[in-house]
Amino acid sequence: MGSVQESPMPDLSHHLNAHSRARHESPLKAIIKYMAVDGMISVAGGLPHSSLFPFESVSLNSYPASAVLDAENPKVPGDLDTWTIAKHPTSEQPLNLATSLQYGDGRGEAGLLKWAREFTKLVFQPAYEDFDILVNSGNTDAWSKVVGLLCEAGDSIICEEYSYPSAQSNWIPLGCFAAPVKMDEDGMRADALEKTLADWGINHPDQRRPRLMYLVPVGSNPAGTTMRAQRRKDIYDICVKYDVIICEDDPYCFLQYGDYEVEATTTGGQPGTPEQFLSSLVPSFLKFDYQGRVIRLDTFSKTLAPGNRLGYFVANKLFTQKLLEATQVETQAPSGWSQAIVFGLLSKWGIMGYVQWLSSLRDQYRIRRDWMCDAIASKFDVKPASSLDIPGAEGLVALAKGTSTPIFSFVPPTGGMFIWTRFYLNTFPAFQKLRADESCKDPELACEDALWVDLCEAKVLLIPGYYYIPWEGPTKATTKSRGGEAGIGHFRLAFSMSSKEEMNEALSRMATVVDAFLKK
Amino acid sequence: MGSVQESPMPDLSHHLNAHSRARHESPLKAIIKYMAVDGMISVAGGLPHSSLFPFESVSLNSYPASAVLDAENPKVPGDLDTWTIAKHPTSEQPLNLATSLQYGDGRGEAGLLKWAREFTKLVFQPAYEDFDILVNSGNTDAWSKVVGLLCEAGDSIICEEYSYPSAQSNWIPLGCFAAPVKMDEDGMRADALEKTLADWGINHPDQRRPRLMYLVPVGSNPAGTTMRAQRRKDIYDICVKYDVIICEDDPYCFLQYGDYEVEATTTGGQPGTPEQFLSSLVPSFLKFDYQGRVIRLDTFSKTLAPGNRLGYFVANKLFTQKLLEATQVETQAPSGWSQAIVFGLLSKWGIMGYVQWLSSLRDQYRIRRDWMCDAIASKFDVKPASSLDIPGAEGLVALAKGTSTPIFSFVPPTGGMFIWTRFYLNTFPAFQKLRADESCKDPELACEDALWVDLCEAKVLLIPGYYYIPWEGPTKATTKSRGGEAGIGHFRLAFSMSSKEEMNEALSRMATVVDAFLKK
Repeated sequence: MGSVQESPMPDLSHHLNAHSRARHESPLKAIIKYMAVDGMISVAGGLPHSSLFPFESVSLNSYPASAVLDAENPKVPGDLDTWTIAKHPTSEQPLNLATSLQYGDGRGEAGLLKWAREFTKLVFQPAYEDFDILVNSGNTDAWSKVVGLLCEAGDSIICEEYSYPSAQSNWIPLGCFAAPVKMDEDGMRADALEKTLADWGINHPDQRRPRLMYLVPVGSNPAGTTMRAQRRKDIYDICVKYDVIICEDDPYCFLQYGDYEVEATTTGGQPGTPEQFLSSLVPSFLKFDYQGRVIRLDTFSKTLAPGNRLGYFVANKLFTQKLLEATQVETQAPSGWSQAIVFGLLSKWGIMGYVQWLSSLRDQYRIRRDWMCDAIASKFDVKPASSLDIPGAEGLVALAKGTSTPIFSFVPPTGGMFIWTRFYLNTFPAFQKLRADESCKDPELACEDALWVDLCEAKVLLIPGYYYIPWEGPTKATTKSRGGEAGIGHFRLAFSMSSKEEMNEALSRMATVVDAFLKK
Repeated sequence: MGSVQESPMPDLSHHLNAHSRARHESPLKAIIKYMAVDGMISVAGGLPHSSLFPFESVSLNSYPASAVLDAENPKVPGDLDTWTIAKHPTSEQPLNLATSLQYGDGRGEAGLLKWAREFTKLVFQPAYEDFDILVNSGNTDAWSKVVGLLCEAGDSIICEEYSYPSAQSNWIPLGCFAAPVKMDEDGMRADALEKTLADWGINHPDQRRPRLMYLVPVGSNPAGTTMRAQRRKDIYDICVKYDVIICEDDPYCFLQYGDYEVEATTTGGQPGTPEQFLSSLVPSFLKFDYQGRVIRLDTFSKTLAPGNRLGYFVANKLFTQKLLEATQVETQAPSGWSQAIVFGLLSKWGIMGYVQWLSSLRDQYRIRRDWMCDAIASKFDVKPASSLDIPGAEGLVALAKGTSTPIFSFVPPTGGMFIWTRFYLNTFPAFQKLRADESCKDPELACEDALWVDLCEAKVLLIPGYYYIPWEGPTKATTKSRGGEAGIGHFRLAFSMSSKEEMNEALSRMATVVDAFLKK
């Protein structure tokens, strides 16, 4: 695995849905190719005249790639880089506003595409040579286009047991369903996937076997799990066996941390080298993808800023060609400002400079991960699950302070922005009452919601776990029918944007609410 | 008309397609509303920390609203405005990068929405009070979302006899068809529309009557026509009668010129006041829209720059709510850079400053329109159609120099960026041969294509008319079945981006190609 495959790739065109197959290249875009002929005078395209763009130049003040960041004291690093993109640069410049602000190629800015190709080869080492890059307007846009590329009404999409709801909001109105697969601390379980697919026809006689998998393999949203290499290979091989396309939605790819140790918060310390950083990353599915069945979604939302609304697909040309045809009539191209400014920064930094930035960024979010875990440990009594006899508990268990009452367990995440807590609802008298109430079809969900409302009223906002339960259709609306665990609820805590003090205060409020809820 | 309507609006919800009706607000977006509670600590959203956005500030060098532009000599106006958007501004500023580059509200930047509302009220005077504004990523994105909002497979969409192909490329793969309506120099004909709808059941027994109209009412692409007020009112009333939704795609709205007079090229001259400019505009369909059945698409692509990928819907709340739900899972929001920079400029200019800019811009494109018409008149003998006896000819007729052989006619456009030429193919022996060839099903199209290839080889690129023939399905592929005019071809010439010299050279090459083609 990982070596470049020379054997012919399988034909995957049967995966395209009817809508994608019916698409054709825009005839107007085809004509634009003639514009490149030397000496051609074009009166073809309805392009505005760039002298009438009212922007003459834009100057950026940006951090250097080597900026020293400090989570405790977030402030502007001392020395900033200042650089300009002019409409008509006087010297040879890779970028100019006359081009960036004009109608552009739906594939993306040429320099950015080249950069993304080099970066992908260096960092992810795809298993086949002629993978393609296509720019998009961020991973929401990208996933929406993947659904538009492959899904037909009535399809089921493989996802994790708990999965990102906005991804599901894209396919549910199309009449598609989730096919959730059980997880462990490595993410989706390979044995559960194999079983789901092998038994599909028996369990779902009226539904086509799933042909698309949606995964957030690093820092899974919400579960916080990161899938290691062997699991990826196992999952990939099952997808080959059952002819499933894998969509690797990887916004948290570069936010991979080591293990968490209670009260041993990492500090900035000595940062590693960019090479050390790269070798610390779990491999992308691309590295195993000798058949071109992975569509990888990369984005700058978490690494530079979400407002860029800029990302790119890495996939085989069959898929990128059809995605491009969709792009031409749906979004046309990402913002020229975003493309120019992001590519300008990446050019300034160089690829290894960007890697250095990613390494520093990872350190910053690791510190925040540690703060949040520490905050839990300071407001609850935290013990290793292995030291307690609690069925299904993994990682650490948070007990009500000074008691032996388990409130929730969590696996300190080794990637991403989220801590996924597993609440032991049987502890709460309020839950026992709900369970005794025969009119309550999903007492787990009802209890979780009641606790969530109490938390909101105590002014701590987190996200209740039921938001992440994949929707399998109207017949799966009870705890049992949806395959939910009896007596278990969840909450998702994000550690990305609060300060250490806010995290401590949030956990303090949470502990108070839980104490009160125990008496309800 | 034009006064604000107080009677209740009709319920238009039956227009939503099944996909739109199945959409719901994203649950994650709903939770974000709680963030506004005072004192709330949120560990809910997975937002990156803004201290980790590597952009500290951006400075723009932009034209003042009063910039004096010169088409003959396009250059930077003397005095530029310099202004900055900082991540954390020291004083009270309407914009900051910490917010603009974060995940944002799918509706759009609040200031921009407010601006768009005020601008719409001032300029377009909608006939009902509670119209809504929703930002999008430009009119391609917007139209794609309107198709996604309303169309079902098998639907027919009313459009003009010649219509923008990229708009059609959006609906064709969905299994929708065009319902083209004959045009005159005012654009879509009201009598032809009425007949199309009245006779629909007879002519299309298997297809649902069209419920959506796509129109570019100013500077129609490709036909260059601009629809005057009375025609709009007539069209609107027919749409009320037959319950049709009107999508007013209006990128060229502010590029409305007076009539063209041969060899009387307008110069910069004394610009009019912003008020004069506004009163010179034909009314938008919004002004007649007492029922909320107009979805207006406004964009900054032609007025500021296409690379902004920024525009907005003006429509009733039923539609904008569903468009917002689509936005949340499809594109999320337009680029934060685009929103901040465009709104920054608009704030700096003020609404009347923007109107002043639009007035100057209009003058620039009017000069270019005149250049192109003059170039035609210098390379062909141009006579008023009224002075010649050519069936169907309107506007001006271009005769081969020094002959009485009519080559094409055209109506000098009073708006937009395009001249639509109507070629008299019977003039060409090559066409007679094609017509005599029984294997040639669409000799008009074949002749147009042959001439187009000759033009390309002579290094003048324009767009053949057949690109703009609406696709009505596979059974309408001959001149006759598609309702094409016998012996007529078309080419579209854009006058937006070439210099005067290039236009003259392009027309010179065209005249040479035509002379040679006459002898083929």
